[in-house]
Amino acid sequence: MTKSPEAGRNASAEPRLLRACRLEPVDRIPVWFMRQAGRYLPEYRKVREQVPFLTLCKTPDLAAEVTLQPVERFGMDGAVLFSDILLLLEAMGAAVSFEEEGGPKVQVPLNEEKDLERLGLPDPEVELRFMMDAIRSVRRSLSPEVALLGFSGAPFTLATYLVEGGSSRDFRRTKILMYREPRVFRRLMDLLVKAVAECLEAQVRAGAQAVQVFDTWAVTLSPGDYRTYVLPFMQELLGRLKGIGAPVLHFSLGTSTLLESMAEIGAQVLSLDWKIQMGAARARLGERQAVQGNLDPSALFKLPEALEAEVLNILREGSEKPGYIFNLGHGIHPATPLESVYRVVETVRSFRLEP
Amino acid sequence: MTKSPEAGRNASAEPRLLRACRLEPVDRIPVWFMRQAGRYLPEYRKVREQVPFLTLCKTPDLAAEVTLQPVERFGMDGAVLFSDILLLLEAMGAAVSFEEEGGPKVQVPLNEEKDLERLGLPDPEVELRFMMDAIRSVRRSLSPEVALLGFSGAPFTLATYLVEGGSSRDFRRTKILMYREPRVFRRLMDLLVKAVAECLEAQVRAGAQAVQVFDTWAVTLSPGDYRTYVLPFMQELLGRLKGIGAPVLHFSLGTSTLLESMAEIGAQVLSLDWKIQMGAARARLGERQAVQGNLDPSALFKLPEALEAEVLNILREGSEKPGYIFNLGHGIHPATPLESVYRVVETVRSFRLEP
Repeated sequence: MTKSPEAGRNASAEPRLLRACRLEPVDRIPVWFMRQAGRYLPEYRKVREQVPFLTLCKTPDLAAEVTLQPVERFGMDGAVLFSDILLLLEAMGAAVSFEEEGGPKVQVPLNEEKDLERLGLPDPEVELRFMMDAIRSVRRSLSPEVALLGFSGAPFTLATYLVEGGSSRDFRRTKILMYREPRVFRRLMDLLVKAVAECLEAQVRAGAQAVQVFDTWAVTLSPGDYRTYVLPFMQELLGRLKGIGAPVLHFSLGTSTLLESMAEIGAQVLSLDWKIQMGAARARLGERQAVQGNLDPSALFKLPEALEAEVLNILREGSEKPGYIFNLGHGIHPATPLESVYRVVETVRSFRLEP
Repeated sequence: MTKSPEAGRNASAEPRLLRACRLEPVDRIPVWFMRQAGRYLPEYRKVREQVPFLTLCKTPDLAAEVTLQPVERFGMDGAVLFSDILLLLEAMGAAVSFEEEGGPKVQVPLNEEKDLERLGLPDPEVELRFMMDAIRSVRRSLSPEVALLGFSGAPFTLATYLVEGGSSRDFRRTKILMYREPRVFRRLMDLLVKAVAECLEAQVRAGAQAVQVFDTWAVTLSPGDYRTYVLPFMQELLGRLKGIGAPVLHFSLGTSTLLESMAEIGAQVLSLDWKIQMGAARARLGERQAVQGNLDPSALFKLPEALEAEVLNILREGSEKPGYIFNLGHGIHPATPLESVYRVVETVRSFRLEP
């Protein structure tokens, strides 16, 4: 159904991943993995033996090198910039740190309105110059068949890091700010919407052809709170991104009960986690919403036949409508066996679309 | 619609919470809170100043005292035994520890088949005698209007603690066992099904009138894996509990996309988290499935009017069909303001059911 008339080859010079984002016909289902440049790759670990995480992010040639590694090894249809969502907060004036254990931290959490004064709107070409240079560097080496993806944290998820100081089980501090200081919350979110929009615009100017917005911690919100405290800001963000000429992919986790609300954001692609059957999600979202996903990253630890059966199931249900990209439901685990990645990518690449 | 003919008073001597579990008419919506005996209560903190957590669990009179505290203060319709799901694992032979930070731990995680030999089927009246004595003690003091609830971890959730050694972000070790050592996983789950069933039977013999089974970490599984690795064992468990004469409440979190599968377990009540509108959940589950929930515990930090509006919404949607119990979607937070709890309980108690 999503097969192009020119069977067997890509219908245009445009990467098939971008065609899928736009609901256009593709010769085969495009595939990439979240966190595909990472510790499960021996060539990545070799680079990391030489430099710490933050140095890697901030050295454009090295960031470009690891960005390209999984594309070269597996033939992924997308190259996703190697970076971190907290670097934007650092550029805004927050002191962040990246520890091996316990995830990234914001050193001085935001407590009250006057703490907002510590934060500013950065010029991405100055404070995030290393990121834009990495994108430019990747673009120079990337095959025109492969799409280059930029990304950012979503305003709400970035707000939780600023307010909690790191990750959280219940995001109580963020919720108390939302509920009890709605004006401060709105000021913070407005600032983050602008910062995210400008960062993503700069990424596209530098050469990113699509951008993914990670709203990982929206999982904590009820449907009502999501509509009050997240949806309007995401709509504002997507409005600002309308002119950039690059599709926006929306990522979240544990939010499949909110699919209909998330569809109102206006992102070209919704990323699905593995808590919902792909077919059920596509049925709920209809013909006009492209999706990506939704293999459980842990499924890569299954025995080969079980893994392949699961991938085929997702492929069949995902490709019933135009606009489908194969991906995991979340980042790949550092202990993932390489054979599993080869097998999944090969299964996707050889999957024949119904004519 | 769920109003009893004898308006204004309870239709029988049986606690309204149990009547709701059985889809019978009630005079008003019953209410209790998960983790209602806990640190947000000054009288609980006072007891805890004297004794550590584990001593409290294992001293029947003290466990009974804190179990009764929220019932006395707020007039809850259920008293839930103060205990911990890992005590059953300890009784089975696992060395467990309870640290203030980082949650409970199993000291020597289960790695391979021979590690199963460390685990046995306990006699709840011997190894968990303190738990049964606490139930008997509560029962002696509890008003006949209030239901006494026992509980246990569900087999899958208990298995994750045994295999991971504690909580986990991705439950990779558990999944590798499931996928790669299905026979060992099945042996472990079979043993846990028996142990949980015998523990809950003993609780009911001691005086519990309903039992809740916590499957907190089922959140990690895809719909397909849930049906393969959890559902059959839960059905086996419910089969074993058929004769105990006490309704079973099923708790999980982040699983609203699996409601239809969970309904097949056969538990009288499904507990809903706050990621789904109560009305949508009831519509999907139909007339014959009682539910409880589903206020976000963080909503107790909302301003009073917003909190009350949210509770009323849930009450309206929950009470559209028989078989509804008001509860949080997860345990109450230790920092919760007491005024919020009073307000919620009062809102539920004064909510007029449609005739």
